[in-house]
Amino acid sequence: MPAKLASSMIAAGFDSPGGPDVLRAETREVPAPGPGEVLVKVAFAGVNRPDVAQRQGHYPPPPGASPIPGLEISGMIVDLGDGVDAAMLGQTVCALVAGGGYAEYCLAYAEHCLPVPEGLSLAEAAALPETLFTVWHNVFERGYARDGETILVHGGTSGIGTMAITLGRLFGLTVIVTCGSEAKCAAARKLGAAHAINYAATDFVEEVARITGGKGLELVLDMVSGDYVPRNLKCLAEDGRHITIAILGGSKAKLNMAVVMMRRYTLSGSTLRPRSREFKGLLAQEIAREAWPLAASGELRPVMDRIFPLADAGLAHARMEAGEHIGKIVLEVGGEPE
Amino acid sequence: MPAKLASSMIAAGFDSPGGPDVLRAETREVPAPGPGEVLVKVAFAGVNRPDVAQRQGHYPPPPGASPIPGLEISGMIVDLGDGVDAAMLGQTVCALVAGGGYAEYCLAYAEHCLPVPEGLSLAEAAALPETLFTVWHNVFERGYARDGETILVHGGTSGIGTMAITLGRLFGLTVIVTCGSEAKCAAARKLGAAHAINYAATDFVEEVARITGGKGLELVLDMVSGDYVPRNLKCLAEDGRHITIAILGGSKAKLNMAVVMMRRYTLSGSTLRPRSREFKGLLAQEIAREAWPLAASGELRPVMDRIFPLADAGLAHARMEAGEHIGKIVLEVGGEPE
Repeated sequence: MPAKLASSMIAAGFDSPGGPDVLRAETREVPAPGPGEVLVKVAFAGVNRPDVAQRQGHYPPPPGASPIPGLEISGMIVDLGDGVDAAMLGQTVCALVAGGGYAEYCLAYAEHCLPVPEGLSLAEAAALPETLFTVWHNVFERGYARDGETILVHGGTSGIGTMAITLGRLFGLTVIVTCGSEAKCAAARKLGAAHAINYAATDFVEEVARITGGKGLELVLDMVSGDYVPRNLKCLAEDGRHITIAILGGSKAKLNMAVVMMRRYTLSGSTLRPRSREFKGLLAQEIAREAWPLAASGELRPVMDRIFPLADAGLAHARMEAGEHIGKIVLEVGGEPE
Repeated sequence: MPAKLASSMIAAGFDSPGGPDVLRAETREVPAPGPGEVLVKVAFAGVNRPDVAQRQGHYPPPPGASPIPGLEISGMIVDLGDGVDAAMLGQTVCALVAGGGYAEYCLAYAEHCLPVPEGLSLAEAAALPETLFTVWHNVFERGYARDGETILVHGGTSGIGTMAITLGRLFGLTVIVTCGSEAKCAAARKLGAAHAINYAATDFVEEVARITGGKGLELVLDMVSGDYVPRNLKCLAEDGRHITIAILGGSKAKLNMAVVMMRRYTLSGSTLRPRSREFKGLLAQEIAREAWPLAASGELRPVMDRIFPLADAGLAHARMEAGEHIGKIVLEVGGEPE
């Protein structure tokens, strides 16, 4: 750990919203940790859809958050704000952050950090928080998924999709995914999806009916929305839950409320970034207790797509927007320790 | 209690769906209680919207239920099926039933009966189960209403609306209702509604915003649906819940799923009649424990609109369809004991 911290750092930011090429290196002051915060020397930063939306100008950072994109990081804690346990200094962690991940240094709240266990690379560690927190909260807390239930996940090979398959497998859910090609379906099955439906070739509503013997399934984790919503509801059994975590297909949906009422459906959804510090802390606690032991045992691993250097953040975004990735795209900042 | 039961009885039924005048007296066999059932000599039967929908042909009875309308009754238990505690014979109860209430005798499951406490008339007792079970489940269980929260209820002077006002007042909720006239608004306020909005004169979305200082409220109990749904959602604070229990304004609703997701709304709903015997038994247990002591103490009373003789069931339906009632419409069958 350096005796004295650098005062400036490289980050990947943008002046005005636009295509992937608006992302470029900039020099910024290293931020100083406030009360309860830690400063992380970033090894890797995960790339997520909200980063793309932010760069496009559709998803401004919440009040107080860094204007630099990046919602998850791994690295070493090199400075502590007031009130943080001194034992954290020098720890290698991954963390959920409200922004600023695409940089050499990034602030995180101490309680939003998870220690990186032996055997988990720092590149993998940076690829976990955003999808792990999102899927955990929406599938198990908001969606009340229980052992033995069946869940439909769109975008089966996305970061979210691959995490949903992984957590589903580890926690006793039968996961059905949709993907846009046979190759992606094969990848999803290999990861543990019980069924992967190529939506380009097959109607997923009919496929789900066939797979479930007409009974329907308990939960849909939807990132498409729009006209998928009524189709998703047709996949649900009575008392089914429909959880929206993105609206990649548009926000407007037509619902038959008689069906919602008579089949006792529940529709909800959430986004993680604007949640309170306290909420994220409680979620991190639950994940540390319930899921993190599986990261330590090697059973919980992110599906890694590709690692780009920080300087190529624009290429990373272009890859995500093209939908070419399977699993997580990560930026290398400081990289793995020597 | 008669030494020997009559073998036939008068009921109010209909041959083919239609207007209120299709209801007419018919003679039926007195049903015999099966295992776990009791036979009630009906004193009064409550009239509910689903009875009207059934008579119109829109809401057929669930499999196994009587074709005679009527979802709630009061009266004396005069016969027991196998396995029912002998102490129930001769008890005066009210009960939720899956049909058959508009008749001199009606079957109920023993665990769906609540004893009529001293001070509660049998006419009032027959007016409680359907709205009490419906509001309790949807507001407190499905809608997670908690002390101090604010709830919007449409149809403030309906049976459901008046029960929601009453339970809200007893359990620490602030209840805002909408009604179709100043007279109904005044009646709702007198019952304990914190605010009553005349929807014919005022936009309820603007009124709720004004009342809540722009913050919105926690729960909407909706029986209108259709184009009320997006307007209801505009009344909700973050994490708000929207519970549909009827679709009097039509079933088709247009939703903005981005708003559902970003404000973390939950939409759900239910109907009571098709639920399992077990579910209704558990609900009755909870109500017996949490709400029924307030019926015994005199704090929980239904709002009584008018009592019609069983022979005038058609007039009772016509009154409900005209929306003239404030509170519950009840049919007198055997009437109060001498």
